[in-house]
Amino acid sequence: DQPLTLIAGPCQLETLDHARMIAETLVRICEGTGTQFVFKASYDKANRTSLKGRRGVGMEAGLRMLETIRAEFGCPVLTDVHDIPQAEAAAKVVDVIQIPAFLCRQTDLLLAAGKTGCVVNVKKGQFLAPWDMPNVADKVASTGNDKILLTERGVSFGYNTLIADMRSLPIMAKTGYPVIMDATHSVQQPGGQGGSSGGQREFAPVMARTAVSLGIAGVFIETHQDPDNAPSDGPNMVRLDDMPGLIASLMQFDVLAKADPFRL
Amino acid sequence: DQPLTLIAGPCQLETLDHARMIAETLVRICEGTGTQFVFKASYDKANRTSLKGRRGVGMEAGLRMLETIRAEFGCPVLTDVHDIPQAEAAAKVVDVIQIPAFLCRQTDLLLAAGKTGCVVNVKKGQFLAPWDMPNVADKVASTGNDKILLTERGVSFGYNTLIADMRSLPIMAKTGYPVIMDATHSVQQPGGQGGSSGGQREFAPVMARTAVSLGIAGVFIETHQDPDNAPSDGPNMVRLDDMPGLIASLMQFDVLAKADPFRL
Amino acid sequence: DQPLTLIAGPCQLETLDHARMIAETLVRICEGTGTQFVFKASYDKANRTSLKGRRGVGMEAGLRMLETIRAEFGCPVLTDVHDIPQAEAAAKVVDVIQIPAFLCRQTDLLLAAGKTGCVVNVKKGQFLAPWDMPNVADKVASTGNDKILLTERGVSFGYNTLIADMRSLPIMAKTGYPVIMDATHSVQQPGGQGGSSGGQREFAPVMARTAVSLGIAGVFIETHQDPDNAPSDGPNMVRLDDMPGLIASLMQFDVLAKADPFRL
Amino acid sequence: DQPLTLIAGPCQLETLDHARMIAETLVRICEGTGTQFVFKASYDKANRTSLKGRRGVGMEAGLRMLETIRAEFGCPVLTDVHDIPQAEAAAKVVDVIQIPAFLCRQTDLLLAAGKTGCVVNVKKGQFLAPWDMPNVADKVASTGNDKILLTERGVSFGYNTLIADMRSLPIMAKTGYPVIMDATHSVQQPGGQGGSSGGQREFAPVMARTAVSLGIAGVFIETHQDPDNAPSDGPNMVRLDDMPGLIASLMQFDVLAKADPFRL
Repeated sequence: DQPLTLIAGPCQLETLDHARMIAETLVRICEGTGTQFVFKASYDKANRTSLKGRRGVGMEAGLRMLETIRAEFGCPVLTDVHDIPQAEAAAKVVDVIQIPAFLCRQTDLLLAAGKTGCVVNVKKGQFLAPWDMPNVADKVASTGNDKILLTERGVSFGYNTLIADMRSLPIMAKTGYPVIMDATHSVQQPGGQGGSSGGQREFAPVMARTAVSLGIAGVFIETHQDPDNAPSDGPNMVRLDDMPGLIASLMQFDVLAKADPFRL
Repeated sequence: DQPLTLIAGPCQLETLDHARMIAETLVRICEGTGTQFVFKASYDKANRTSLKGRRGVGMEAGLRMLETIRAEFGCPVLTDVHDIPQAEAAAKVVDVIQIPAFLCRQTDLLLAAGKTGCVVNVKKGQFLAPWDMPNVADKVASTGNDKILLTERGVSFGYNTLIADMRSLPIMAKTGYPVIMDATHSVQQPGGQGGSSGGQREFAPVMARTAVSLGIAGVFIETHQDPDNAPSDGPNMVRLDDMPGLIASLMQFDVLAKADPFRL
Repeated sequence: DQPLTLIAGPCQLETLDHARMIAETLVRICEGTGTQFVFKASYDKANRTSLKGRRGVGMEAGLRMLETIRAEFGCPVLTDVHDIPQAEAAAKVVDVIQIPAFLCRQTDLLLAAGKTGCVVNVKKGQFLAPWDMPNVADKVASTGNDKILLTERGVSFGYNTLIADMRSLPIMAKTGYPVIMDATHSVQQPGGQGGSSGGQREFAPVMARTAVSLGIAGVFIETHQDPDNAPSDGPNMVRLDDMPGLIASLMQFDVLAKADPFRL
Repeated sequence: DQPLTLIAGPCQLETLDHARMIAETLVRICEGTGTQFVFKASYDKANRTSLKGRRGVGMEAGLRMLETIRAEFGCPVLTDVHDIPQAEAAAKVVDVIQIPAFLCRQTDLLLAAGKTGCVVNVKKGQFLAPWDMPNVADKVASTGNDKILLTERGVSFGYNTLIADMRSLPIMAKTGYPVIMDATHSVQQPGGQGGSSGGQREFAPVMARTAVSLGIAGVFIETHQDPDNAPSDGPNMVRLDDMPGLIASLMQFDVLAKADPFRL
């Protein structure tokens, strides 16, 4: 039972200097609190609500930025991939390949991610029960790669709303794979603003704290110095200024939870 | 910010000796952990899934038992009422009158409960959003009685399934009224066994711990020495033998949460 | 397989003249189309979202109005009851006693309604699966009264939203009891306007037509000459002016459906 | 307002002779009833619940079979694609390219499908509201291709269950694009059998008839001569033997509905 891992960063890569600023802040917070840190950012938002949403810097530029962040800060980096060639390209740079929730049942993508030998973080689809995830993990594991993370990010609850089921975390943990709580996407309101998704940033700490209290492996939080002007997921990203307090608080719950973990 | 309150007891009153045994066990646990204790039991299960379900000892006999428990153990007692005359009768005996979730919108019952001057614990309907509860509390408060508790017990999620939304707790807390998490009914599977409700007892600690980590006022847990043979709600009641460990664990999270409460 | 029954009227009784006006219009429409007609109105809205909602004329005045409508127009009348004494009082006047959805699991109310010998229309709770309704009907039938109607009025779907499951109609029909589609409450948005419920009147014909196409026994529609100024359920009531066209259209689908009913 | 279109065929291509048998049967039924027919079959099930599920004959073999069916029976053919190269390859053979529900937000796939100039049928994701589909259609239309179909196939309702919202059909029809009801996938129970999806074949006619009664453009039905032994989606496919009666019945409702269409 390792201390909590924080997977965090901006929703999408903007500039190298922006990524550096976010990474530096998060590295410093995590050093202070003994939190394991993985830098997360996307180079392409491949499934925006509408065509008007900004997609990002693209794979080539994005992977170069992630490579730089990794080298300069010495932290593992994670990015999400959307097709097989991307999985292969990203694997040359990143430590963790992430499978987006909408794509978590696409067999060939899971196999390709597994074959890279990277850690594979699969987000549970908004349409999936937690007990459906062992089948998903088995697809990755069939490649001989069992470095798998399973992430809860909320399940559809009526229209334009997600709800996070805390039962999901111990259910997925029964697989033996580390379980991550995505505290920012589980408070997303998909399509909730017509041309883009809404969100309830104020509840991200609720998702993080309640999940951490169960003794999970890690928490996933998107953060930005100015979420209201971020190119994507602004409504649900946590302000960078709020991260030190949030992480410090989570670490206290993590210590208590790891001493008394909930297991099914 | 008081220490955690535990509202607990058997789902339904069976015999006075049975109530005594449960109460004694819980009183002893709570004395050891500094937990405030309220004894809970029902004298009538008025909305069983099917006619074949056992309803209970009835109001007269039940109120007498509760009176005895209150006198012998010196603990406050809670019971649920289903119509106006019951509210008036129960108020002579109990400290807390509970409004069942299905009845949480019945204006006259809320008014009658308020008028008794007792503490009124309203369970949020399985069909209600947390932001609908201020309207419910206002009905009680209109009687001049603001001793109100608001309880989360899960919301409908597809058929025969409930899900607990952790956002609900801080949303209801914004009313200023103490918020309670019902850890056993939120893992009920209504009608899930055809002629009776099913449940997932193993997840009650998940509901309790995650809720307590937010710094709520209290937790509601039904318990029985032999749940599998209990007359009602067996599948979701916690074994009495498991209560000492559960309460001790919750109190640790309560101390941490009360020092760093989540507030909207 | 009788022609379609229309259960219709204003959500709540306002004045006798208002009830007369609505009843007269509906009687005339139904005579023209060969539709069986039952006049529906409530004397008390016992579970308004907020205390500020208008409750109605009260039981005494309401039952007198219903008695007059019944006598003057020669049509059966239906009203909803909220406790045992109301069931007994209403039974002296009305043909059909209705059990509100929130109360559909209250055993004593179901038994009291059954014992009156009236037809009993039970609305399926927003928290219930269709396969849970046989248990509900059994409670009524245990009194020896099998004049039971089962009504679909939508099921909780996220917060403040209902969804109507068309599978529910044939599932409930397997009981052998006539099945009714409540086309106006299934497009209600409970609590959707903060202090009162919203609704999507424009979809009531969708609910009615799709349900009628399956060959159900009847359709339930609340209607008002000026819904936007009605004291309750305005957002989901159908304009009285739209009723002739709607009923004529439904009758065409009813003829086709009754010639080729869907049965499980 | 054209007569109803039937998009039908086996869930996955098995052999050319099997496809011929199904196509021949459906062509004959549709000729007899004046129904427009589109043959549907998949060459690859790319998102099976588990690795053990049979994936299909593969793109090359599958497209050759579809080409043959198209030539021999003179009917348009539809298949689903899972990445950009598949969209381009399929476009050389099929009339309609289908975007699977899980992939309905993948911008690049929608753009690639649009650019082929084929008709593009987009299935609404199980996680999407009907009012989110105009954004999806806009992605396709941005390529200059407005030959778009929008298909309802159910929305997530709790775990392992879908529910079909009849309001969705007129909401999507407001885009001006033809709307299709997928009567077999909307009764799927995703992951409902552990290692594969379950389904409720008996309700497919309910979905089809209720949707057709609203005057939609078409209905999508997967069918098989022996669903219980089909390689995928057996539990929700309609028996081929039941198709003549079902189509004849739907055409009667279609005639009535097209004479009196429901429009928002």
